[in-house]
Amino acid sequence: MNNNEYYINECIKLAKNGAGFVSPNPLVGCVITKNGKIIGEGYHKKYGSPHAEVNAINNAKNKKHNLKNSTLYVNLEPCSHYGKTPPCIDLVIKEKISKVVIGIKDPNPEVNGKGIRLLKKAGIKVEYGILKNKCYELNRFFIKYITKKIPYVTLKIAQSFDGKIALNNNKSKYITCNESLKFVHKLRSVYDAVLIGKNTALIDNPSLTVRLVKGRNPYRIVIDKNSKLPEHLKIFTDKNSDKTIIINSPKNKKILLMNILKALYKLNITSVLVEGGANIFSQFAEQNLFDDIYFVIAPKIIGDGISAFRDFKITTLSKTKNLLLYNLFLSGDDIILHYKKSDINK
Amino acid sequence: MNNNEYYINECIKLAKNGAGFVSPNPLVGCVITKNGKIIGEGYHKKYGSPHAEVNAINNAKNKKHNLKNSTLYVNLEPCSHYGKTPPCIDLVIKEKISKVVIGIKDPNPEVNGKGIRLLKKAGIKVEYGILKNKCYELNRFFIKYITKKIPYVTLKIAQSFDGKIALNNNKSKYITCNESLKFVHKLRSVYDAVLIGKNTALIDNPSLTVRLVKGRNPYRIVIDKNSKLPEHLKIFTDKNSDKTIIINSPKNKKILLMNILKALYKLNITSVLVEGGANIFSQFAEQNLFDDIYFVIAPKIIGDGISAFRDFKITTLSKTKNLLLYNLFLSGDDIILHYKKSDINK
Repeated sequence: MNNNEYYINECIKLAKNGAGFVSPNPLVGCVITKNGKIIGEGYHKKYGSPHAEVNAINNAKNKKHNLKNSTLYVNLEPCSHYGKTPPCIDLVIKEKISKVVIGIKDPNPEVNGKGIRLLKKAGIKVEYGILKNKCYELNRFFIKYITKKIPYVTLKIAQSFDGKIALNNNKSKYITCNESLKFVHKLRSVYDAVLIGKNTALIDNPSLTVRLVKGRNPYRIVIDKNSKLPEHLKIFTDKNSDKTIIINSPKNKKILLMNILKALYKLNITSVLVEGGANIFSQFAEQNLFDDIYFVIAPKIIGDGISAFRDFKITTLSKTKNLLLYNLFLSGDDIILHYKKSDINK
Repeated sequence: MNNNEYYINECIKLAKNGAGFVSPNPLVGCVITKNGKIIGEGYHKKYGSPHAEVNAINNAKNKKHNLKNSTLYVNLEPCSHYGKTPPCIDLVIKEKISKVVIGIKDPNPEVNGKGIRLLKKAGIKVEYGILKNKCYELNRFFIKYITKKIPYVTLKIAQSFDGKIALNNNKSKYITCNESLKFVHKLRSVYDAVLIGKNTALIDNPSLTVRLVKGRNPYRIVIDKNSKLPEHLKIFTDKNSDKTIIINSPKNKKILLMNILKALYKLNITSVLVEGGANIFSQFAEQNLFDDIYFVIAPKIIGDGISAFRDFKITTLSKTKNLLLYNLFLSGDDIILHYKKSDINK
């Protein structure tokens, strides 16, 4: 890792502290150095609050540092427009920062590169394209949301190693171990929304909240064609009931997922964690509308039971969608495999 | 690793060279040291040929070493009885070797500890119980065979990550990648026999030989209730047809696997690699007669297809057999999970 990569990596680490709180904004961290020493750092903490650059500049100034001739590192191109806060570019110029090192350009095609041009025009040295893959990965939700105008979709499938998400009697509590439940709660705390089908809501009566780890609760989305879910369900009665969204899809056989995702985009939801059941998973596979999958695999044989993609079917093996193994880790007795679609960002 | 562990580990490495060729004998490697230097080494190469100790002693003598006051390391207790060859104990005593370090005692309850007693009686220093787990693992086939009087049984299941071993039309060539096929051929080269059901024989017409790697071919066992397999199948017509065994199980609904395994024991088969299909896998799960499972998982979604344990069913989640993840490794685009029954050797 060279200097630029080291400091952009520090920005990424800082940025992650905002996960779950900044949506629909991106995750941004910022580090300012002078004479080879970090003099200020900050990250975007919460939607509507100051940007990472502002926090890092204020951090340096609070410590009585003069920003003249300093270098500012940030994982995403600084903004050049008035949003909830004034443009960061103006502040960088005003503080006489002499160099800006940027992870990746703003993915928003309308402003992409504009901040860089304005900085250069003001005589500030600019470098960009540092740890690009890591920066894209950090903001995969934001990038999908801003470029495709639908949320990033992750399927979370907890199954036995013979591929069963429940017994034939629909019982699925709990196939996977407690560590894996914690992992799922951690995921919920960083996704804007969790999505399930009507049957899962009825059978499991889940709360879909974050309980086993610290973190904020996601929106809870239930796809229910007939709006006939009983009022006693936890999602309607618990203290987070204002975060429950019921979607009435038209009474077709097929759920028009693209329409649902477009509606969620309009609600500023940048990321959706799909938690089942089999019909919902199958529809997402059939309509090819997911970005990645977490398979939580328990060391159990269930045998004749319910498969995640029961209602989906390929006709020949050459038609299978190949996914790429992106990561794998042990989780108690389970193993978690993280696969990504190979055509992501294409 | 102390000295004893280091040299026993060398024995294990040597012993592995015999894999696939020594059955129903155990895998044994032997190292002889004198004044802190290895002066001889050897392993059991082939059933009926000299034991590891004999090969190591001859190796040292060929290099003109005097074995007096040397130390002999061996992963398994030396034999004290006449089998195909004279007892190794006699040779060790005759050569005036002063110390013998043994990985594990002979698992055969009839001779267990007898070699150690005879060595001590002859005034030779003996240590044993070195790298025990590794030594048990090395000879898991032999130990199961000698103590339980049935072969060690491994299920090899190649599946999509949604747990499907074939499409509904039975097509399964090839779900997994070429690297994984090589891995399976490597397995075949060390198991005494490969076992499949009648349907797999009919539908896939497999040769079940070792082609993609170097190694010897296993016996091919087909369970066929009616002995109605057509004569044109590869297993009957290729040049290994003398290694094909057809088992006519009685016409019960359930295959009496224990009887089959007992019959295979009588044929000196110490290990069986079960390669499907779903009915066979299900029966082994139902009758709880397997020792471990290799899951070769391809990054593919198949959806509605055939599950490995389709004909097996648990009634409640608390009744699932928990397995232990023993090893995992990447194989091209696939991932291979190796699970063991937690009650092995109990």
